[in-house]
Amino acid sequence: MTGAAVSHADEGQWQPHQLLQLKAELKKTGISIPAEKLADLRKHPMSAIVSLGGCSASFVSPQGLVVTNHHCAYGAVQRNSSATQNYIANGFLAKTMADELPAGADSRMYITDKLENVTDRINAGMTKGMSGKQRHQHIEKKIKELIAECEQDKAYRCSVPSFHRGLEYYRIRQMMIRDVRLVYAPSDKIGNYGGEVDNFEFPRHTGDFAFLRAYVGKDGKPADPSADNVPYQSKDFLVVSAQGLKNGDPILLAGYPGRTSRYKLPEEIRFARDVSYPARVAESRADIATIDAATAGNPELQVRYASVVKGIQNGLKKTQGLLDGFMRKDIAAIKDTQDAEFRSWIAQTKRDDAFIKELENVIAADMRLSEREFGWSVATNSDLLRTARTLYRLALENEKPDAERKAGYQQRDRSSIAGRMSRLQQSFAPEIDLARFSAGLNRYAALGAASHPAGLDALLPKVSELAVMYTQTGLLRADERLAWMTRPVAEFRNSDDPFIRLAVRLHDTGMALENEREENDGNQSRIIPQYMQAVIDWKKSLGKPVYPDANSTLRVTYGTVAPYSARDGVIKGPFTTVEGIVEKHTGKAPFNAPAALLQAVREKRYGDFRDPVLGTVPVDFLSSADTTGGNSGSAVMNKQGELIGLNFDSTYESITKDWYFDPAITRAIHVDIRYMLWVMKEVDHADNLLKEMTIRFPKR
Amino acid sequence: MTGAAVSHADEGQWQPHQLLQLKAELKKTGISIPAEKLADLRKHPMSAIVSLGGCSASFVSPQGLVVTNHHCAYGAVQRNSSATQNYIANGFLAKTMADELPAGADSRMYITDKLENVTDRINAGMTKGMSGKQRHQHIEKKIKELIAECEQDKAYRCSVPSFHRGLEYYRIRQMMIRDVRLVYAPSDKIGNYGGEVDNFEFPRHTGDFAFLRAYVGKDGKPADPSADNVPYQSKDFLVVSAQGLKNGDPILLAGYPGRTSRYKLPEEIRFARDVSYPARVAESRADIATIDAATAGNPELQVRYASVVKGIQNGLKKTQGLLDGFMRKDIAAIKDTQDAEFRSWIAQTKRDDAFIKELENVIAADMRLSEREFGWSVATNSDLLRTARTLYRLALENEKPDAERKAGYQQRDRSSIAGRMSRLQQSFAPEIDLARFSAGLNRYAALGAASHPAGLDALLPKVSELAVMYTQTGLLRADERLAWMTRPVAEFRNSDDPFIRLAVRLHDTGMALENEREENDGNQSRIIPQYMQAVIDWKKSLGKPVYPDANSTLRVTYGTVAPYSARDGVIKGPFTTVEGIVEKHTGKAPFNAPAALLQAVREKRYGDFRDPVLGTVPVDFLSSADTTGGNSGSAVMNKQGELIGLNFDSTYESITKDWYFDPAITRAIHVDIRYMLWVMKEVDHADNLLKEMTIRFPKR
Repeated sequence: MTGAAVSHADEGQWQPHQLLQLKAELKKTGISIPAEKLADLRKHPMSAIVSLGGCSASFVSPQGLVVTNHHCAYGAVQRNSSATQNYIANGFLAKTMADELPAGADSRMYITDKLENVTDRINAGMTKGMSGKQRHQHIEKKIKELIAECEQDKAYRCSVPSFHRGLEYYRIRQMMIRDVRLVYAPSDKIGNYGGEVDNFEFPRHTGDFAFLRAYVGKDGKPADPSADNVPYQSKDFLVVSAQGLKNGDPILLAGYPGRTSRYKLPEEIRFARDVSYPARVAESRADIATIDAATAGNPELQVRYASVVKGIQNGLKKTQGLLDGFMRKDIAAIKDTQDAEFRSWIAQTKRDDAFIKELENVIAADMRLSEREFGWSVATNSDLLRTARTLYRLALENEKPDAERKAGYQQRDRSSIAGRMSRLQQSFAPEIDLARFSAGLNRYAALGAASHPAGLDALLPKVSELAVMYTQTGLLRADERLAWMTRPVAEFRNSDDPFIRLAVRLHDTGMALENEREENDGNQSRIIPQYMQAVIDWKKSLGKPVYPDANSTLRVTYGTVAPYSARDGVIKGPFTTVEGIVEKHTGKAPFNAPAALLQAVREKRYGDFRDPVLGTVPVDFLSSADTTGGNSGSAVMNKQGELIGLNFDSTYESITKDWYFDPAITRAIHVDIRYMLWVMKEVDHADNLLKEMTIRFPKR
Repeated sequence: MTGAAVSHADEGQWQPHQLLQLKAELKKTGISIPAEKLADLRKHPMSAIVSLGGCSASFVSPQGLVVTNHHCAYGAVQRNSSATQNYIANGFLAKTMADELPAGADSRMYITDKLENVTDRINAGMTKGMSGKQRHQHIEKKIKELIAECEQDKAYRCSVPSFHRGLEYYRIRQMMIRDVRLVYAPSDKIGNYGGEVDNFEFPRHTGDFAFLRAYVGKDGKPADPSADNVPYQSKDFLVVSAQGLKNGDPILLAGYPGRTSRYKLPEEIRFARDVSYPARVAESRADIATIDAATAGNPELQVRYASVVKGIQNGLKKTQGLLDGFMRKDIAAIKDTQDAEFRSWIAQTKRDDAFIKELENVIAADMRLSEREFGWSVATNSDLLRTARTLYRLALENEKPDAERKAGYQQRDRSSIAGRMSRLQQSFAPEIDLARFSAGLNRYAALGAASHPAGLDALLPKVSELAVMYTQTGLLRADERLAWMTRPVAEFRNSDDPFIRLAVRLHDTGMALENEREENDGNQSRIIPQYMQAVIDWKKSLGKPVYPDANSTLRVTYGTVAPYSARDGVIKGPFTTVEGIVEKHTGKAPFNAPAALLQAVREKRYGDFRDPVLGTVPVDFLSSADTTGGNSGSAVMNKQGELIGLNFDSTYESITKDWYFDPAITRAIHVDIRYMLWVMKEVDHADNLLKEMTIRFPKR
């Protein structure tokens, strides 16, 4: 019944301090930086690693210059673009610091500088008799206290994520840069070459890189955006190596992986494979079809919903990839085998195994609940309803002291809620929202009983009633949405705005689901740590350290540059080349390479960036490193810790790695630093940045 | 203006005697059989090579046992199958010679035993003043005489193909085996694994092999099928090597390639690319759509037209592949460069270049004519009309002495015409033929003026008149079709059968096209040999021999086992493995491997057939050998001339090789002998055949 991941050569998203247990493996892989250095957040190279919140990045100069993926800086490029200044299509390069552009009011950089194990503080006061919900609330309260204590200094943002599914808690302190500027992004003809077509695919030819810069106040401390700010003097930065790598070379990768599920139980895998993922795929397809039909023939609406559709499609491709992967390899069966080994070890060691039965019950309850949560999400598929519910919840939480408010509705969250309220229009249109809401209600009606939360059906509006609701609501106006942010609960209850009324009417049912979720999570927080401790002990008995699931905290992984067999008779990678860009070029997006790039290839102006084995400039390459979403923009380093590329994607066959790391087929996709430097030199003439960075060139 | 092919390492479908000029290249490739042996048709291994007419094969025992492709023996398997004895699905294995089944009345084996250069005899009596048509008829007459002289002995079949586009003529004498029997064919779940889906594709996992046996009279001479016949004592046969090959090993390949166009001019390539192939692709798609629509919902009709559709689809995939290839690589431009070199050599050598202008004119006329021929084929897209026209033409030719009759309508052709007349029903239904004829007439009406032969439009029936014609014709009956084979011309002219009447009415227009074709071919036969002689002289000046285009005569090619880069970042081959069969297996055709095979893989029962590098049994592999259609079933040999596989297909990227051999991407697909032997041992238990062959096993 356990899903304990077996540690393979390249598997493991390690907390930096865990590397001390992996000295032999690091040496075997060929990494020459001492583990002691890698383990210390305040030392090179880890102190050069940056989080952008959802993406990873790294400092590459002492002047706060940061490199990340193009798709991570895309919002900053978009915000600065206009019809006359199309930086998306043409790229943007600030030739001097004065030319750098604001990346956007909510752009942030986070530099992790402190990590404390606070498990004891979380658990203090927890008693055996507590219900699941009580446990959940206890933990939430302790976390809020720990964060508030840490965030006294406005320069920092703090968080208390759990590790090993609740066995451990760490308080993480990150310096938060609030003035982020756009320095350089190539054209999306380079940065997004291949677009959606090539997403999750290899061979890949995407130049997915861009540069930002951290700005601080004159006192050197984080400050709100201001013309008076100065570049942040980054105490650490990565040296760039243009010497490149070849097949089989070791690599290190550091960044902020988002979420993995490596320790799921076999029955959780079977539920995902047989129930929840197929349902989610069908739902995504139906929603995309609804949007496509509703926006057909209207380019303006298509543009407005492009990012929504892209988001759904991305999730769809990932979920479908997981299902395909589950078909290809019976991961549940592999976990069954591991589980049998684990149980036999438990039996051998005569350990108390009561937690196993409890765990099975909690997981079963979780699966049943998730079916109802899915039904709820299908029935409420409206951005306007979501907006009304957020506003009503905010009013309810406002009635409590700040410390007791639900996370996400505290004082510290108000500015981000206001941002969402004012930006809604950018990716919203009432007629499309109406179409999605109607179609969702119809699909909900067709779902089985297991997906209908108690009482919900009677509260939902009829499809025939929806159209008029959109004509009567004030929530289509940004000022009205913002105004509701400060109104008291009574005003909501007396409102005749149909969406506010619907939000009020659905509130109790939504809360019942939330309470049940908290009860379940609280129960899990009691039982799963017992399970994880047993797994860790078991692994320890085999001499193997255990890495925690990804949770958006700083991790290090290592591996080698490696091709893979996509199927019998087909080898992919490890490198693609600039000739492959020409091969894919059709002149139409997403395969529309800039003329200057095509010409440079035609003239073979490869210079220092020519790979001696390939005889040309490499573009992207594969490694066996263990990554997931959130690792976008992660620094890929050689054995000395020099930057040789950026992580930006994984192959389609690797998608199942979030559940099970199969070393034979799991490959991360990186953009080669030599391609970045070549584009900067030959295509975009970013000589100022090439000069600012410290670049080691190959000896010829 | 010339399309002279530049000879690359692996390019060349050589006449065996040409190998004497290639000793250095053979040695460099690693072939250890002396060129002198390979050049001699009466010596091993060439005397073991067999033609099946359209396919190639080879003797593998002194008892006349022959190995070829499954798809080459498919007709024999089909003819012996019934609802109760489904040898297609279940495979067939004769455990003793007495169990061997007749391969079919028109099954033949041809063993080339004599080759004479008869160019002088063809050209004798040709005069400068002759028109194109006169030249054509002169050549046709000479060929018929040469054949008749050679076929005095009924044991032989003779032919006089032209080489180098008419520069040379050889008379080829082949012993013709008329009693061919089916010995062994695996299930089509092995022999056609992957079916249409994998056709022209790699990675491939097809076990495309089968065994036949040659039978002769008790006197050892070819004889009509009879129970009294005995196995042919093949004086030569190939030893089978189970030692296998690895990446980079040299191979030899001998067989009967059908047709290539390597010496086409750049303008011929442009015409194919821009005019004739796109038209042909559109026509094939439309015809398939018509058949699909007309047979929809009727499985019986679908089965009857399955082979027709398969044939059109195969041609379509090939033509589309050529167009794709033309898009990928500008072959016309490559030929332009070669042409410029050729012209500059012509100018240098001060050779008379009048033929160049003449050639351009003849080629231009040919292209114009081919547009009208295409229109004619679209307008007459009816099997029933084709039948009526064949019968009327036969009656007309019957009025002449046999020697003067058109080739294909002589006494020697009557039995094959009768066969076609009696078999028509197998792949014909009047309602489908009506649909195709109607749709073809409509498409013809929409074609441009260049595709309308003079006078044809007025003679064609209206679409509205067609339906009643099918109700009034007697040609739907086999006995009536056969009866028309002996009726005189007058009876055709007085007939009121609507299809006979239409054939008579269209005859003159058809003949006008045929005459124009003969005039054009005659002109080509005068000018192209001058051009080819100049090309050969030019190549000779560069120290390079020139191989003639394929023309269904015995050829030898050599190359190496080699993977290829299908696109940047993707390497395919050179080997696939039995694990790939499991990977593709869905349980549904065409990916439905037999249970016994799957189990043998699961149990890793690889025995002697395990490749030491791959660690498993290889299935198919790629080589750089130069092949084309007709090479199906060709023996693939190691450097000592031992059989190590059978050729059966080419990769999709290779399709353009019929026009231009690109060594970087051109790969032939072979079934590995180790897979064949493994299937025979582990799946089908064909121990009698394994014993009959001489097999060299690896030393372990």
